[in-house]
Amino acid sequence: MAIKNQKGIALWNRAKKIIPGGSQLLSKRSEMFLPDQWPSYYKKAKGIEILDLDGKKYMDFSIMGVGSCALGYADPDVNKAVKSAIDNGSMSTLNCPEEVELAELLIKLHPWAKMARYARTGGEAMAVAVRIARAYSGKEKVVFCGYHGWSDWYLAANLADQKNLDGHLLPGLEPAGVPRSLRGTTLAFSYNHIDELEKLVKENNDIGVIVVEPFRHQQPQNDFLKKVKKIAEKIGAVLIFDEVTIAWRLNAGGVHLLYRVNPDIAVLGKAMSNGYPMAAIIGREEVMQAAQKTFISSTYWTERIGPTASLATIKKMQKVNLPRHLKKIGKMIGDGWQKLAKKHQLKLNVIGPEALITFSFDYKDDSQAIRTLFTQEMLKRGFLASSSVYVSYAHKPYHVKKYLKTVDEVFGIIKKAISDKRITTILNGPVSHTGFKRLT
Amino acid sequence: MAIKNQKGIALWNRAKKIIPGGSQLLSKRSEMFLPDQWPSYYKKAKGIEILDLDGKKYMDFSIMGVGSCALGYADPDVNKAVKSAIDNGSMSTLNCPEEVELAELLIKLHPWAKMARYARTGGEAMAVAVRIARAYSGKEKVVFCGYHGWSDWYLAANLADQKNLDGHLLPGLEPAGVPRSLRGTTLAFSYNHIDELEKLVKENNDIGVIVVEPFRHQQPQNDFLKKVKKIAEKIGAVLIFDEVTIAWRLNAGGVHLLYRVNPDIAVLGKAMSNGYPMAAIIGREEVMQAAQKTFISSTYWTERIGPTASLATIKKMQKVNLPRHLKKIGKMIGDGWQKLAKKHQLKLNVIGPEALITFSFDYKDDSQAIRTLFTQEMLKRGFLASSSVYVSYAHKPYHVKKYLKTVDEVFGIIKKAISDKRITTILNGPVSHTGFKRLT
Repeated sequence: MAIKNQKGIALWNRAKKIIPGGSQLLSKRSEMFLPDQWPSYYKKAKGIEILDLDGKKYMDFSIMGVGSCALGYADPDVNKAVKSAIDNGSMSTLNCPEEVELAELLIKLHPWAKMARYARTGGEAMAVAVRIARAYSGKEKVVFCGYHGWSDWYLAANLADQKNLDGHLLPGLEPAGVPRSLRGTTLAFSYNHIDELEKLVKENNDIGVIVVEPFRHQQPQNDFLKKVKKIAEKIGAVLIFDEVTIAWRLNAGGVHLLYRVNPDIAVLGKAMSNGYPMAAIIGREEVMQAAQKTFISSTYWTERIGPTASLATIKKMQKVNLPRHLKKIGKMIGDGWQKLAKKHQLKLNVIGPEALITFSFDYKDDSQAIRTLFTQEMLKRGFLASSSVYVSYAHKPYHVKKYLKTVDEVFGIIKKAISDKRITTILNGPVSHTGFKRLT
Repeated sequence: MAIKNQKGIALWNRAKKIIPGGSQLLSKRSEMFLPDQWPSYYKKAKGIEILDLDGKKYMDFSIMGVGSCALGYADPDVNKAVKSAIDNGSMSTLNCPEEVELAELLIKLHPWAKMARYARTGGEAMAVAVRIARAYSGKEKVVFCGYHGWSDWYLAANLADQKNLDGHLLPGLEPAGVPRSLRGTTLAFSYNHIDELEKLVKENNDIGVIVVEPFRHQQPQNDFLKKVKKIAEKIGAVLIFDEVTIAWRLNAGGVHLLYRVNPDIAVLGKAMSNGYPMAAIIGREEVMQAAQKTFISSTYWTERIGPTASLATIKKMQKVNLPRHLKKIGKMIGDGWQKLAKKHQLKLNVIGPEALITFSFDYKDDSQAIRTLFTQEMLKRGFLASSSVYVSYAHKPYHVKKYLKTVDEVFGIIKKAISDKRITTILNGPVSHTGFKRLT
């Protein structure tokens, strides 16, 4: 029985004709989950529940707004604060005091940082951070590990070889339209491979910026972050930690606080404002003041909802001890997957952290088809499910129990499909995409 | 008598210590209006009324949220739509249908355009547009006139000579931190000087993108826009019209519709969403599809408030015939200035368009001090006033009458100050800034 999400699928097909790529975000393409079957659009989202255009209800055990809603959808406390800002005018010729209050709070949480700037998206905030860092160090070459968005400075890494970024979250990122003169200005090294960074430093004497995602799925090994910082200090490079995805999930603020390694600049976003556009660049005063010798200015960075939502979100995350909740729930999910994989004799790898719990099927060329089958069968049973769960405060133990009961059933179907060699036969549409691809 | 805005001034001084430059936008710095006296922050904004932190009320006859609130602050219809989106969840793993509806509406208003993408700030949208244009044309050199934001591609124009951008709205834009390898990739020509563009085309055979603000204060002369388009076609360059500031004020959509010159890409923002972060890149299908061969993706571009606010704003702008209102009110203001300048024998130039009516004092080196005095004396009398009024739907004739009555009084004071050579004596603070400058 195929899933019928008629309205959503029809709208997605229309969208692809008038919006190149269908969506503004690769990770929200239906093709990344379940081509030709995914509901694609929502009417209403509350807690972890999503209502699609056909009136069908799902529980979200997938990416929860790509990690932007760690308190759950439409959080009442955050929404209350935002609505009050709207009633009082969310924009004017004068500035909103909330942006100063937010700067004070971010500095309090990150005592090494003394100044803050804002943007409204993570990619934009990273571009601001790199601009400030280059302006401060006076050297423009950037070395990095991890995923850092769509901007020219980052995609420039793929100008020399289109596979340079492949190990960093998303494969196949094409850099067409990035000036070729930027070739060689951005160079990649692998996470936890300090030797690769040392090699880059030996070969390039003009490195001004080191950009690192301090943690996503791998823990830093052998004092990796400390060693990176030492190298940055030695060569006079500005160290930027991109915490857009990971911050707030493991502790209050950036995860670098847990590892006691302070960068020169940290970039925060996503979960910080629970679904409202916002991002922050925080840093040491001396470095941040370089923002005054380069023009960085945008009208919509001054509206009131971003800082208002952030203040309400951060306060609530602290009040409810969000990291503790995410860890507990993520562990329930991860343990459940492992137990059920064992029961059904499925080859499954589970990786952490709990707050961003992830699995992969280990069946070589069939792995992606099996993952697609998992999403298909979970969807039929009322769950948005992929191989990662961005756990939120709205995920409660009773949701997890329901979810794992369904996973049990679906793992049984998958096991049988593998044994019968019928995976693609019972898939009602194509296998999902793994990276950037042209949509038609 | 000095103005006392104790709380706002104190907060601004604090902000400058923890936010480099004090604000996220050059045009919202207190120093751009009235250093040491400007109220700086607001509690509440409604219509054209703003309440500052000390509880003092002002009418905004200045930049109205830098042109972002053409319906007035906290417009009830737009706010109602936004609050409904908030109640129904402004973010989820699935996409919001409003972004498809908005694409349909933008395409309907601009029949030459067949596809749309979105960002959340004007600068970001321009960077997306330039990326797509470069990817399509395969040639990376950009020639431009006008102001287009803070991104690397634009500030690169100042790498060769820091004064290249001076004629384009804001003087002194420092490009520190922009890769030096971009030197020569962005070249400026002057608005209405087709000969300068022709010269650039003769000297550079690798121009892939032409970026023009089709209208700000000057009307196109001698078929300027048509000639630019002809050149773009001839050399195989993508023509981008940056309509972030001007669109929606003179007609529904981009002003290029009035001049019957269709670009390949048009960028819309600011007034389109009445204060909520949003921007759109619309264009011809063939050109926009180049977005599929380059990675352009950001999480917060997918939230629901931007397109929801835009839909409500555009519909209301059409319903109330906003351009007609702005023209009428702007004309009242401009005529009033001229009449009062004549009465007080002040040398004053008024420039259009009415929807963005602007004056300048014509007193050589004293002009900026006189403008500062104007702002100071208007502020004392309850008006936020500078030399431009971004007229809005909330500006009604009775507001204008009150405003002009006060301008009459203040012009008298200014005339006397000029005659007595006491301008700086009666200024209670420094003269306002005219461009980008380091704040301490």
